[in-house]
Amino acid sequence: MGSFKGHALPGSFFLIVGLWWAGKFSFWYATRRKKSAGHLTSRAAQRRLEVIEGATILSFSVIGMLAEQFVADGPRLHLYDYSGHHWDRLMNWQHATMYLFFGLAGGISLTVHATGSAPLALDRLLLSVAFFTEGFLFLYHLHGRAMLDVHVHQLLLYSIFGGALTAFLEVFHRGNVLLELLRASLCLLQGTWFWQIGFVLYPPSGFAEWDLKDHSNMMFITMCYCWHFAVSLLMVTVVYCTVCWVVQSRLKRTPPMEMGLLKTTEKEQESEDEI
Amino acid sequence: MGSFKGHALPGSFFLIVGLWWAGKFSFWYATRRKKSAGHLTSRAAQRRLEVIEGATILSFSVIGMLAEQFVADGPRLHLYDYSGHHWDRLMNWQHATMYLFFGLAGGISLTVHATGSAPLALDRLLLSVAFFTEGFLFLYHLHGRAMLDVHVHQLLLYSIFGGALTAFLEVFHRGNVLLELLRASLCLLQGTWFWQIGFVLYPPSGFAEWDLKDHSNMMFITMCYCWHFAVSLLMVTVVYCTVCWVVQSRLKRTPPMEMGLLKTTEKEQESEDEI
Amino acid sequence: MGSFKGHALPGSFFLIVGLWWAGKFSFWYATRRKKSAGHLTSRAAQRRLEVIEGATILSFSVIGMLAEQFVADGPRLHLYDYSGHHWDRLMNWQHATMYLFFGLAGGISLTVHATGSAPLALDRLLLSVAFFTEGFLFLYHLHGRAMLDVHVHQLLLYSIFGGALTAFLEVFHRGNVLLELLRASLCLLQGTWFWQIGFVLYPPSGFAEWDLKDHSNMMFITMCYCWHFAVSLLMVTVVYCTVCWVVQSRLKRTPPMEMGLLKTTEKEQESEDEI
Amino acid sequence: MGSFKGHALPGSFFLIVGLWWAGKFSFWYATRRKKSAGHLTSRAAQRRLEVIEGATILSFSVIGMLAEQFVADGPRLHLYDYSGHHWDRLMNWQHATMYLFFGLAGGISLTVHATGSAPLALDRLLLSVAFFTEGFLFLYHLHGRAMLDVHVHQLLLYSIFGGALTAFLEVFHRGNVLLELLRASLCLLQGTWFWQIGFVLYPPSGFAEWDLKDHSNMMFITMCYCWHFAVSLLMVTVVYCTVCWVVQSRLKRTPPMEMGLLKTTEKEQESEDEI
Repeated sequence: MGSFKGHALPGSFFLIVGLWWAGKFSFWYATRRKKSAGHLTSRAAQRRLEVIEGATILSFSVIGMLAEQFVADGPRLHLYDYSGHHWDRLMNWQHATMYLFFGLAGGISLTVHATGSAPLALDRLLLSVAFFTEGFLFLYHLHGRAMLDVHVHQLLLYSIFGGALTAFLEVFHRGNVLLELLRASLCLLQGTWFWQIGFVLYPPSGFAEWDLKDHSNMMFITMCYCWHFAVSLLMVTVVYCTVCWVVQSRLKRTPPMEMGLLKTTEKEQESEDEI
Repeated sequence: MGSFKGHALPGSFFLIVGLWWAGKFSFWYATRRKKSAGHLTSRAAQRRLEVIEGATILSFSVIGMLAEQFVADGPRLHLYDYSGHHWDRLMNWQHATMYLFFGLAGGISLTVHATGSAPLALDRLLLSVAFFTEGFLFLYHLHGRAMLDVHVHQLLLYSIFGGALTAFLEVFHRGNVLLELLRASLCLLQGTWFWQIGFVLYPPSGFAEWDLKDHSNMMFITMCYCWHFAVSLLMVTVVYCTVCWVVQSRLKRTPPMEMGLLKTTEKEQESEDEI
Repeated sequence: MGSFKGHALPGSFFLIVGLWWAGKFSFWYATRRKKSAGHLTSRAAQRRLEVIEGATILSFSVIGMLAEQFVADGPRLHLYDYSGHHWDRLMNWQHATMYLFFGLAGGISLTVHATGSAPLALDRLLLSVAFFTEGFLFLYHLHGRAMLDVHVHQLLLYSIFGGALTAFLEVFHRGNVLLELLRASLCLLQGTWFWQIGFVLYPPSGFAEWDLKDHSNMMFITMCYCWHFAVSLLMVTVVYCTVCWVVQSRLKRTPPMEMGLLKTTEKEQESEDEI
Repeated sequence: MGSFKGHALPGSFFLIVGLWWAGKFSFWYATRRKKSAGHLTSRAAQRRLEVIEGATILSFSVIGMLAEQFVADGPRLHLYDYSGHHWDRLMNWQHATMYLFFGLAGGISLTVHATGSAPLALDRLLLSVAFFTEGFLFLYHLHGRAMLDVHVHQLLLYSIFGGALTAFLEVFHRGNVLLELLRASLCLLQGTWFWQIGFVLYPPSGFAEWDLKDHSNMMFITMCYCWHFAVSLLMVTVVYCTVCWVVQSRLKRTPPMEMGLLKTTEKEQESEDEI
């Protein structure tokens, strides 16, 4: 995966997920706040959405794992090259392992929301585990590379472990919109930073090569990381404002009515699920 | 203890404890959730179980300490070799110290649940202390070993300190099933990883030797650790599902009845214990 | 910004902010505690104050950014010197980046308190992010400097990251006066320490030069940092006592009356905002 | 203070404080639990005790500071030796700084409990700050010493920072007896470890010298630290059991009576203080 495309692909993936989370949590927060907007979403619809999200993450992870194994130069499930006495394409195996944990998180989220046979917070716990494992593998991934190469990946770790920590805090503070949006923006940051890494380490033709040993490059890239974070915060803000404005304008057109009974039954169901 | 058996033994121990915890906490969660399943377990039965668990851990720890001291090449309570002017078999003493803290945790858990004369959360605090001490001793255990040897033990530290942190969080969030199952899976991870260390450092006859200085071995072993974690999560999931299914099927056969009075008195007792 | 003035300026800024926070939070705490003092401040007045504070921070940050760019030797928005093939005045860009995040925090705080369209705790989250980013940039700022230079900046990091952590805790424990005053004193500490750095690294004429490689200087400076902390704690205490005394003496003169209705409506508004 | 006595003195101090805390918090917990024991202690008596404790800590700290300055070879408030161009007796100044923060904590605790004009948790916050500062000064205290010397002081840091963390957690979980007893045992650990350091680095006549560069000494000392911790846990347990037994036996002799009214007024006062 040491290529521009190999970084652009996960980058795009995390970008889309980040935007999706920003939209989803903004929408839920907006409808929760305005009690009159309750009819725009229902507990059952939320649950259905979570199931779809889990299924999507699961299927992308499975596709990712298969792709890592069976692309042109993939290991095709061979782990050890007995003729050469060395491990076979560890990189691909490592990436497949990362996908595996995101797949687990997706699968469990799907199960939890579809069957309700486990505590809801399990989805956040496994998301936290998936992020942590991703960061953990990157952490021991960097041996013997050039200074700038190591540095850009270390910066990436901030957003990954930040995401893991945020998801873990959500186990205890579920439904805290600030944590949810912070997670969304850290995910966006990860996405844009993967693109940046691609441009720095494998500049596409037309772009200048970077000197991987120049210290001032390192200083610039650190600052650049902060700009990416500022941009990702801005993107989440824009999404949040748009969603709030849409919910507001929908409210004016459709007056709320006869939701009383429905809501109580849903409330009951919810509290039953949680404990 | 620098042998295959010396790693397989604690590995098996942690494996069994991890499975036991996964089963116990799943069962309690399942019966707590379905109010109608309340008759499958009672507060008094839970307490009796905790007492037995504490006693078991205590006795195994005492046996472990005695074994470390009085095996063929043990120090037999001699700490310093005055003739040779050096410490006598520090390894055995270190392992005995680890057992000591688990023994403390077991003994205190036994006392707390048997007499109720101390806050319940004390058992988790001392479990946390026991895990922390184990990790602490391993941390300063690694000086001057080969690279891969150090690395596999460092990886072990993640699961040990993870267990310590989880148990510490349980002091404040007692009864949170997610933390309990996370602790069970970290304990399982520790168990399987001890076996892995045995295979890597002291391969039994028939298995290939590992090159302890090869960097790609280190990369593989890091990834392998993640697989162990995935497997331990899977094992906990399987146990959880089995327990839920058993509780469910038992419920269908035995209808709940006349538990009202019993439960209230138990509830009172419980709240009295806690504060 | 490697000059005495370049350290005295932010130092003064943080000093003023620290004193302001100490006064503001002491006043709110004093009026909250004495229910009879409720008429000295109202929820609407508090909100107006927060809006003004946000606007002030925002405008200072914008001025700071412009100053960094357009001072005599500023980069004037040029990032890369194509003729010399190197990055152009990275220092100024880094400082501008720090201002950017404080500007973001100020702007968001202004919006949250003016419109109430986002959860209140967002102001603390972004303040935490701003402090974190400041510390983050300083952390990767120190490569290749003299020992004492690195050390005084590392000490600065304690107060910066301490402030970030405190603000983050406030997201979950909003209105905890201890955290608020701790943040104020860490901010004061940062302010006085910036002045100290100025005196150590760029002694104004009349002051002795410091030997940047002497180890006993390092020992002294560490202790000196603790003294600064003690002084900042003392300053917060003095402010707190003064404010409490003033509120007390005002209470004696103006008897409380007919606040009942007003307060309930404000209370409602508040709880509506928060969830 | 580089002498046996210089370590035995603070060691004894922390030992006494640790035992005192273990006793105090055990007693309060025992009387809180048995509602019928309420007459053995009253809120006002607790407050008086806290005031006395604060005053004692304050006066010992002042004595400590004066002693550090005016003993035979103290700096007598001279900080810089202008003739020799070097800092004057930094060690004494550092120890005086540590006393300063404990003095601050004692003084503030005294004020808070005597006047009630600040939130109660302030005493824990400043205790946490005092422990943190002590650890912070030790951390930068170790440059250029022998390996074992550095190691024994690093081990000390675990108990110091552990105490700081525990006290900080108590800001949010005030009255949690487990945290209080954990703090007591970490304080005891610090006390016994100071004695141990004295014996290792400055063995009194009759004791063997330690080889400060021998690695097996380091391994032993790490394990020895765990034993100290086990002993301190045991001491706290013994104190706790004794106190519980005494309270119990007192209860049998003096029947509880007419406490109803008194307790409600105290309860009110308490809740008023806290918020």
